Amino acid sequence: MNQSNTQAMNKIRVTIWNEFVHERTNPVVKNIYPEGIHGVIAKVLNQQDEFQARTATLEEPEHGLTAEICEKTDVLTWWGHAAHDEVSDAIVDRVQARVLQGMGLVVLHSGHYSKIFKRLMGTTCLLRWREAGERERVWVANPGHPIAEGLDRCIEIPNSEMYGEPFDIPAPEEQVFISWFEGGEVFRSGCCWRRGNGKIFYFGPGHELYPIYHHPLVQRVMGNAIRWARPQGVWLNPAAAAHAPIEQARERITSKGPQLHDATGSLQV
Amino acid sequence: MNQSNTQAMNKIRVTIWNEFVHERTNPVVKNIYPEGIHGVIAKVLNQQDEFQARTATLEEPEHGLTAEICEKTDVLTWWGHAAHDEVSDAIVDRVQARVLQGMGLVVLHSGHYSKIFKRLMGTTCLLRWREAGERERVWVANPGHPIAEGLDRCIEIPNSEMYGEPFDIPAPEEQVFISWFEGGEVFRSGCCWRRGNGKIFYFGPGHELYPIYHHPLVQRVMGNAIRWARPQGVWLNPAAAAHAPIEQARERITSKGPQLHDATGSLQV
Amino acid sequence: MNQSNTQAMNKIRVTIWNEFVHERTNPVVKNIYPEGIHGVIAKVLNQQDEFQARTATLEEPEHGLTAEICEKTDVLTWWGHAAHDEVSDAIVDRVQARVLQGMGLVVLHSGHYSKIFKRLMGTTCLLRWREAGERERVWVANPGHPIAEGLDRCIEIPNSEMYGEPFDIPAPEEQVFISWFEGGEVFRSGCCWRRGNGKIFYFGPGHELYPIYHHPLVQRVMGNAIRWARPQGVWLNPAAAAHAPIEQARERITSKGPQLHDATGSLQV
Amino acid sequence: MNQSNTQAMNKIRVTIWNEFVHERTNPVVKNIYPEGIHGVIAKVLNQQDEFQARTATLEEPEHGLTAEICEKTDVLTWWGHAAHDEVSDAIVDRVQARVLQGMGLVVLHSGHYSKIFKRLMGTTCLLRWREAGERERVWVANPGHPIAEGLDRCIEIPNSEMYGEPFDIPAPEEQVFISWFEGGEVFRSGCCWRRGNGKIFYFGPGHELYPIYHHPLVQRVMGNAIRWARPQGVWLNPAAAAHAPIEQARERITSKGPQLHDATGSLQV
Repeated sequence: MNQSNTQAMNKIRVTIWNEFVHERTNPVVKNIYPEGIHGVIAKVLNQQDEFQARTATLEEPEHGLTAEICEKTDVLTWWGHAAHDEVSDAIVDRVQARVLQGMGLVVLHSGHYSKIFKRLMGTTCLLRWREAGERERVWVANPGHPIAEGLDRCIEIPNSEMYGEPFDIPAPEEQVFISWFEGGEVFRSGCCWRRGNGKIFYFGPGHELYPIYHHPLVQRVMGNAIRWARPQGVWLNPAAAAHAPIEQARERITSKGPQLHDATGSLQV
Repeated sequence: MNQSNTQAMNKIRVTIWNEFVHERTNPVVKNIYPEGIHGVIAKVLNQQDEFQARTATLEEPEHGLTAEICEKTDVLTWWGHAAHDEVSDAIVDRVQARVLQGMGLVVLHSGHYSKIFKRLMGTTCLLRWREAGERERVWVANPGHPIAEGLDRCIEIPNSEMYGEPFDIPAPEEQVFISWFEGGEVFRSGCCWRRGNGKIFYFGPGHELYPIYHHPLVQRVMGNAIRWARPQGVWLNPAAAAHAPIEQARERITSKGPQLHDATGSLQV
Repeated sequence: MNQSNTQAMNKIRVTIWNEFVHERTNPVVKNIYPEGIHGVIAKVLNQQDEFQARTATLEEPEHGLTAEICEKTDVLTWWGHAAHDEVSDAIVDRVQARVLQGMGLVVLHSGHYSKIFKRLMGTTCLLRWREAGERERVWVANPGHPIAEGLDRCIEIPNSEMYGEPFDIPAPEEQVFISWFEGGEVFRSGCCWRRGNGKIFYFGPGHELYPIYHHPLVQRVMGNAIRWARPQGVWLNPAAAAHAPIEQARERITSKGPQLHDATGSLQV
Repeated sequence: MNQSNTQAMNKIRVTIWNEFVHERTNPVVKNIYPEGIHGVIAKVLNQQDEFQARTATLEEPEHGLTAEICEKTDVLTWWGHAAHDEVSDAIVDRVQARVLQGMGLVVLHSGHYSKIFKRLMGTTCLLRWREAGERERVWVANPGHPIAEGLDRCIEIPNSEMYGEPFDIPAPEEQVFISWFEGGEVFRSGCCWRRGNGKIFYFGPGHELYPIYHHPLVQRVMGNAIRWARPQGVWLNPAAAAHAPIEQARERITSKGPQLHDATGSLQV
């Protein structure tokens, strides 16, 4: 293998998923993101040596998330808003399985209500919201956390959509950011969880009517979050965690009773 | 209202759900539970003043979990093994919604692989297992926890199915029990989580080939778990956590930009 | 035992601890709390049948927290600001031991920097602060939590001291409240933890220059928190969790090697 | 700077702390660890390019943990048993402060009862124990965790001291290992926590009467744990998180009331 291949293999392979709807239907959004939100994020990441970013969108076959692409993705980022219901359940199954094997997942803004996020959280993931272009201030609650690396005390976002508490999520395992809104609300805008072998980060800012993904500090958080969420080199097939035959028990035992399963581990009804 | 009604209203209303398959197809199981696992659990609970238990099974219309029954249930217990796939997704949706509103859920033994548990956990919920009738010793890891109330250091179960680590679940918020198995394995057999307003407890013992639900200390744990999981008197409709109109903001603000939603909060595409 | 005794025994026995300094040195504080912060809190609780509140202050012998008082306390609330260092380490040891046995602890406002809170958290418990009499809005992040019972979406506190992130605490196990401040900050103002058999709640509002403990909703939170933190009826002596002699092992084993401890379990050097 | 310096700077700087008592007083222990437990661990680490390990022991001035050494330590490992009380409180203060700034801490075996571990946990850290040379099997409960990297399902330790539940610790944030013991007990033998900016790992095996730190898989865990616990490049001074002057507030506010602090932020009594 030549050196450039080796380098490429060491890069974090990121897939930027976007439903890519409002960038084509709304002129304001189109003007901010002529190549789509995914286009901006991928471009920024690919300017940094450590990332190798590709994009995928709702309209592509299998939403651009084929088994092969998922196999080659270390971290997936997810942005959706208007078309959550159009995402196929089969693809959600595939992405969930891949996260549980170890793929990182960074869920962005209105992605809080995506099928994949609700699937992994188990809750409604509902929140309060208001669209007034008000100021959001994203405070760092955990300054030593790798996702806050390079930030000062907070990120100021001049115009943002308000997302407010209560946010119906399982208690975050690490609270990286909490947001303040001009209209008077607060929101847990940076939350970490682990599910299976995968790491999940939710990041609040990102309303499509404002140029939030052009903000250098938001871009910084994206890179930090992807770096944090990358797999640790271990890819597992949880399905392997199954039948433990008696004769392979670590302590010598013999069967003491009847069985509902046959010798292959199949349940008999 | 007369006094007996008042008393009845103060009781914890429990619904004991059972798929009720092996008790009818397997003579060993039938002999241990002639009225079904649900029958034994409900009977034991109803002998205690504080509980009002009913049963529901897979074969009933809507699996016995109609909207009305769910409305009247404080805590649901779930036992299934051979027929997880036969549980309708619509009923799983309903039960999940009710847990998130505040209904407690106690998941038993092979219920680890039920649709409802996987839905609420977001993980595969897979584990290792072996059916050898070996000894299980359920150790109390958290002796001050209400679910361990009345127990000594551990519960000895003479014959049990081995369930072993890794158990693919989100990190338990409280670890009440950890089991030791004769064949050499360990298992997190008593785990607590909170999802939405509901409390969830998973309890490992309960293989249908052994009279585990006849064990007085297992019955004790069942009662403790139901008591722990009961709602705190607050029933919420998370769907209410939605649009916050600008004119109702706590701080006076005016809209600073365009909007994707109309005045009723509907998203425009 | 007569009936009134029985009733008294069922009440939650609360000890309201206060350093009681600024109420005597500062005329503004004195005017708001002529009988001390502890006086107001105890009075409010004692107007409710379910509580039996007493007070204790720094200047009393053993700071009013004798072994006997600790024995008879179900939940202790802690307010301190100017004199944290004057609290004796021996009393902190005693209170910590009692919390680990099961006594609830409600830490108030500047109590975040008390010896007992730092001891139980293991962190610096530092935060940012500003004393400007600004507006604080305490949002309910977990509307089904018993500590939020009876509240609407938030509590408005017209004048408050700003406490802001980062707040150096272990990740809260449950996040009940998050505060918004007029000057632009946010703060995790309602946090739950479990340590040993005890439950701990930190509540942010309570600066002594403003009549915050006269606020009906703050009083409501106090009652809710005490109710939540009360012991579950289990009082443990963790010191009992020690030597397990070989001959009492649940599985029959014999010693396979040398020992550093003698037969009584004493370590030999 | 020359290249070897650069390489050295990229290495993880580990300090292996040991009380170093039983290796000198007990002939069995002396025979297993003629250069001390710390000697074996440091030697093994220094054979791997990524680590730069030094040792420190109780008898050295400041226990070998001077301010300068702490400054230059990325991860500290801690083994103690017979002399916990001889560790100076001032050194415990220093180590705690350094962990909260970001230094990793790996606590080994009987170190569960060290001052530094109890300080960071806030609990008694008591457990059950038995010294019978029985078999311990350390199961991997979280196979995708970096600390389990390179392990199969479990580590078999032929002779070990039993440590059993209940183990009085705050709920682990990640459960990497759970141990099975021949005599019938279980134990949470691999637990992760975050405190301040520091990561803490407790690892159960390591009784000094058996050659446990000579076990290749135990050595593997040591390396994995140190790698996991290393700081993320962020070193913080939490004391900086303090007074936020009114004129620097992010939102323009003016003081609305009296103050207890003077302009420098000093509290007036």
